Amino acid sequence: MKFRRSGRLVDMTHYLMEHPHRQVPLTYFSERYQSAKSSISEDLSIIKDVFESRGVGRLETAAGASGGVVFIPSADEEYTKEVLGGLCSRLEDPDRLLPGGYLYMMDIIGDPALVKEIGRIFASHYRDAKVDAVMTMATKGIPLAYAVAGYLNVPVSIVRHEHRITEGSIVSINYVSGSKKRIQTMSLARRSLKPESNVLIIDDFMKAGGTIRGMTDLVREFQSTVAGIGVLTEATHEEEPLVDDYVSLTRLSGVDERGSRIKVVTGNIFDR
Amino acid sequence: MKFRRSGRLVDMTHYLMEHPHRQVPLTYFSERYQSAKSSISEDLSIIKDVFESRGVGRLETAAGASGGVVFIPSADEEYTKEVLGGLCSRLEDPDRLLPGGYLYMMDIIGDPALVKEIGRIFASHYRDAKVDAVMTMATKGIPLAYAVAGYLNVPVSIVRHEHRITEGSIVSINYVSGSKKRIQTMSLARRSLKPESNVLIIDDFMKAGGTIRGMTDLVREFQSTVAGIGVLTEATHEEEPLVDDYVSLTRLSGVDERGSRIKVVTGNIFDR
Repeated sequence: MKFRRSGRLVDMTHYLMEHPHRQVPLTYFSERYQSAKSSISEDLSIIKDVFESRGVGRLETAAGASGGVVFIPSADEEYTKEVLGGLCSRLEDPDRLLPGGYLYMMDIIGDPALVKEIGRIFASHYRDAKVDAVMTMATKGIPLAYAVAGYLNVPVSIVRHEHRITEGSIVSINYVSGSKKRIQTMSLARRSLKPESNVLIIDDFMKAGGTIRGMTDLVREFQSTVAGIGVLTEATHEEEPLVDDYVSLTRLSGVDERGSRIKVVTGNIFDR
Repeated sequence: MKFRRSGRLVDMTHYLMEHPHRQVPLTYFSERYQSAKSSISEDLSIIKDVFESRGVGRLETAAGASGGVVFIPSADEEYTKEVLGGLCSRLEDPDRLLPGGYLYMMDIIGDPALVKEIGRIFASHYRDAKVDAVMTMATKGIPLAYAVAGYLNVPVSIVRHEHRITEGSIVSINYVSGSKKRIQTMSLARRSLKPESNVLIIDDFMKAGGTIRGMTDLVREFQSTVAGIGVLTEATHEEEPLVDDYVSLTRLSGVDERGSRIKVVTGNIFDR
């Protein structure tokens, strides 16, 4: 299909956004639009400038015969602060307080637009970490993990408490849930994670860190490494968390069940 | 920020893709770019033409003072056939055969790019169905449900077998799982679905249809209606399925465990 520059810019922007973190050869675009590579290069430099000035990501171009372009989505500090500011206010809504001091979170996790924004923030933070896979724990971590993995263009491994017949052979480990000090089991399908992967662990909530610590152990069972740990909300806990080097977006600094007050602040993401 | 037309086209394409199924007033764009509404309208007609010729969606513009634009993502027949063709071949890989004739599916469900393509196909099919929410069953339906909901810009309600304390008050129903004829329970957090919603049910697998039938009953418990039912893979079953009016993308027409052969064909999506 032959397009003029204006049409090419729209279509290339669409294409790059649908294929993040993937090397696209310039020949692909020049054949797609029946245009010279020099025109494609000019188009890409326009897109690059807009993406950079808007803080939505960078385009990396490699020169030469095998030359190509990669779109690396990112979230700048302004965007991140705006999203996290809104998130903190929403989390402080006293309506989400449940008996026992638990918080209802499904309105947050159930909002695909917000989940996507959160995914973009994590994907931006770990954009140069050479992540091969995202790991999470069923159920509430799944939407976040997919949002991150979509931007990073890597597969997702879903860890479960219970074992399903449709997973084939599995690897199971025991772990101690940090806050209740109870021994639990988590498992992952053997073929759901390639050995020697660099794994980004994503979860919705972390208190003592027992579950996440379990996932780091599970990563090692697959001869793999931990690229990073990202949690949506961490709760302050009397003891040191069982993992360090995690990135949190928000921190639950106080829950006053009697007074129906919740205090939420930005997590440690800007300290990193 | 002031952009020339080329820059505006890139940024508007990005913005519209990040905000599907949402009315954006023309004033928003004219303020964003400090440009006249007439220029914005011309930009939009360029984007509209490209999106339509590429089959990625349509732009609906409303004229007048409150005039705005909505991006409705879609998947044309060519795109859908290509995605489903690839999906059928992948599903026929005998390596996914598990003891008992079960199929390993996590490589499909674990691939965010493929999941997004599937989501776009379902979102396209139901783009004019006035969907208010997407409902799915934990665990494997979740990634698909979010992909669909992301394109439709609606929230997700996750139904579960077990009940969690962090969900607050719940609505539970009993249902008969079709193939095993066993009574099971499914539940949904009371505040996870607004009453009088029009609900699109999305799931990864349907055999006798018992689980999906249960979800339609649950929808009614919330004084809501079923906008549609979409399943990734249906299995042929000796009896009539317990639901009708569903859309399937693929159909498992035969599993020969002894000969390690799986036969998968396109589902009923093109018959609808």
